[in-house]
Amino acid sequence: MRPQDLIEKKRDRKELARDEVAFLIRGYTRDEIPDYQMAAWLMAAFINGMSEAETRALVEEMLHSGVTLTHDQIAEPKVDKHSTGGVGDKTSLVIAPVAAACGVAVPMISGRALAHTGGTLDKLEAIPGFRTGLSLDEFRDVLKRCGLALIGQTKEIAPADRKLYALRDLTATVPFQPFMCASIMSKKLAEGIDGLVLDVKTGNGAFMREFEDARNLARMMASTGRAMGKRVVALITDMNQPLGIWVGNAVETMEAIETLRGDLEGDFAELCLELAARMLIAGEVESDLEIARDKARDAITSGRALERFRACVEAQGGEPRVLDDTKLLPQAGEQRVITAGRAGVIAGVETDEIGRVVMDWGGGRRRLEDKIDHAVGLRLHAKIGDQVDAGDPLVTAYYNDESKIEEMGARLRAAYRIGGSAPKSEPLIKAVV
Amino acid sequence: MRPQDLIEKKRDRKELARDEVAFLIRGYTRDEIPDYQMAAWLMAAFINGMSEAETRALVEEMLHSGVTLTHDQIAEPKVDKHSTGGVGDKTSLVIAPVAAACGVAVPMISGRALAHTGGTLDKLEAIPGFRTGLSLDEFRDVLKRCGLALIGQTKEIAPADRKLYALRDLTATVPFQPFMCASIMSKKLAEGIDGLVLDVKTGNGAFMREFEDARNLARMMASTGRAMGKRVVALITDMNQPLGIWVGNAVETMEAIETLRGDLEGDFAELCLELAARMLIAGEVESDLEIARDKARDAITSGRALERFRACVEAQGGEPRVLDDTKLLPQAGEQRVITAGRAGVIAGVETDEIGRVVMDWGGGRRRLEDKIDHAVGLRLHAKIGDQVDAGDPLVTAYYNDESKIEEMGARLRAAYRIGGSAPKSEPLIKAVV
Repeated sequence: MRPQDLIEKKRDRKELARDEVAFLIRGYTRDEIPDYQMAAWLMAAFINGMSEAETRALVEEMLHSGVTLTHDQIAEPKVDKHSTGGVGDKTSLVIAPVAAACGVAVPMISGRALAHTGGTLDKLEAIPGFRTGLSLDEFRDVLKRCGLALIGQTKEIAPADRKLYALRDLTATVPFQPFMCASIMSKKLAEGIDGLVLDVKTGNGAFMREFEDARNLARMMASTGRAMGKRVVALITDMNQPLGIWVGNAVETMEAIETLRGDLEGDFAELCLELAARMLIAGEVESDLEIARDKARDAITSGRALERFRACVEAQGGEPRVLDDTKLLPQAGEQRVITAGRAGVIAGVETDEIGRVVMDWGGGRRRLEDKIDHAVGLRLHAKIGDQVDAGDPLVTAYYNDESKIEEMGARLRAAYRIGGSAPKSEPLIKAVV
Repeated sequence: MRPQDLIEKKRDRKELARDEVAFLIRGYTRDEIPDYQMAAWLMAAFINGMSEAETRALVEEMLHSGVTLTHDQIAEPKVDKHSTGGVGDKTSLVIAPVAAACGVAVPMISGRALAHTGGTLDKLEAIPGFRTGLSLDEFRDVLKRCGLALIGQTKEIAPADRKLYALRDLTATVPFQPFMCASIMSKKLAEGIDGLVLDVKTGNGAFMREFEDARNLARMMASTGRAMGKRVVALITDMNQPLGIWVGNAVETMEAIETLRGDLEGDFAELCLELAARMLIAGEVESDLEIARDKARDAITSGRALERFRACVEAQGGEPRVLDDTKLLPQAGEQRVITAGRAGVIAGVETDEIGRVVMDWGGGRRRLEDKIDHAVGLRLHAKIGDQVDAGDPLVTAYYNDESKIEEMGARLRAAYRIGGSAPKSEPLIKAVV
């Protein structure tokens, strides 16, 4: 078998057999197939498409390119959640402890902020001392002791994905659903899970702006996971405005802590309860969705979820007092209120632009190697459909770089569309796959 | 400008501007753009196509990636011929001296045998001592003294093409007409020519098996050359059987010498006279095609073309006595006659298979770095439409590797299709563009 023959096959819209996909991914991971041949193959697949069988083969080969975890010493069902990325999405920080408090073990390997979207690891690292870079042994140990463990991608897990992602990033082959599916599912399936809840975001703050694209990806990921014997459910959820009322790293961690302390108002808490309930179903600790939602709510109101999170923070080296006093999280030096220029109803928000303002102000990353300022954050005062008067606060910005305040203030104000009447209300959960 | 943005543009079927093509080709030639980004772009262009303007930009950038020759000291018009490659095609060895004898200077940079096709350089190098690796100064000097000079690709000319060709070869992006056009035309236009005759082969021994493909490539190359101010004519010629009666290196050089000595029978001589006449028109030393053909014929029958070739062979270090005694060319140790298995009419020949037999017996190359045996050759006794009896000779094979005789004999016999009646006769010259 020669790489160029497999490139030619995909170039000519033919389907690769299982062993041909294996040859490519194994050869590439071992540095036997050079970047340039892989790049040509990636582009041919991007343009000509991949079949379901090819996608499944890709997922399995990427999964088996590294270590796959097992947790034999843990009796509880293992369930994780993955979000395709959005703005203000701090659900992981709430639902992992909630699910753990309800008898589900959550071995969660998360990502970092990239482009306009936030990342769970950066929010966790806003907690002083919190270590996301545990070894796999430490990870298993924390999981066993706390029922949840929250770490970043390791060298051992799905090395093919890390190598391929770097190549895709430089060859304009990132936004292709079979590659996205393989990237996500290979890493999640390596965690040693029994079940998985997928939160596929759609709207102007998501990578999949169109509902149909989100549904296709959701179906692809769900069927791939099910074919490998996992209980998988995918929710397609609205990302046409930031989730919750805070965007940034420390401020989102604060919002998550407040939710764990019992503040269950608003869209963020609603999504947390729904996703946590779905995790209980996926872990087969509950079969009725209504009861699962009640259990999730009870885990919060009883304080058990907060205690699980406290145990995890302590086990991972973080300062547990932040759970009692969120002022111990990084605080920005400056703040400014951005007001509405006219009266009306919030008709729309450029959600990605909100995320980009945080990024450009130091709170996010253009590239994975960029450093971030955890303290930068935005408090959003108005959701879509809210009535505002001219001069009412739209956003309070918390920041350290005063030189950018004029630009950022203008961008934030421009990100809000104020109209004469309320737009059609969108459901938070648009579909379940 | 970033390479990934230009990759994305081509991925999304958009047209690149002149300066974007320049950015890619210059960056790649200077090793500033890595192979993997170029490979992704090549594949995107291969699948999604390139416009005429993009193709022209590609040709010009590849041309200007290296030295472009001028021949101010030579008064004669400079004209070259290029063939897209076939089996038994030794026309360059005849028409370069014929054109030179008629007042056209021929600065010819040729290629080597590859896959089933032969290469002018290998045929020339069958002449003991003949040097095809002249410096550009030597090349210009031989051209001035002899009216023709026959060399191989140099480092100085179109380095972008050499780098791109190696990458295309490993990424399944060779058979794409805009790339083929750019590869051929960038090198030919760098020779410092005023006119160019293109011989685009079509049929089962050509890279373009289909006439339409050959015509498209011919049109693309001709319009590119004309847009750059050159007089260009393209002939689309038949390659459904080997040209002439000999296939190999030394044996084809022998056949060319015999033609220069006045043997003007058959399809090979016919094509030589036609191409040489077209060169006289392209060089504007003659305007009437009939008269140009007569001049070409007269250059041979008068012996002037042979003397031009003798001067060139001497100037390039070759043994001129081979022109008087072709037995001085490398001779194979063994020979075997392959006979017809049944009576009938030659209905077809697998031309590419004839070429592959020569290659596999040592007379050609799978890869450019392979060594070749110049003595290996085939004498073809029957052309399409000829009547044969069972036992009549089809091919006499001349070879050194006796171990392959059974396999090669069987392959040669199988390459001939003997039917009940003569097939429709195909014209040698199918179209002029």
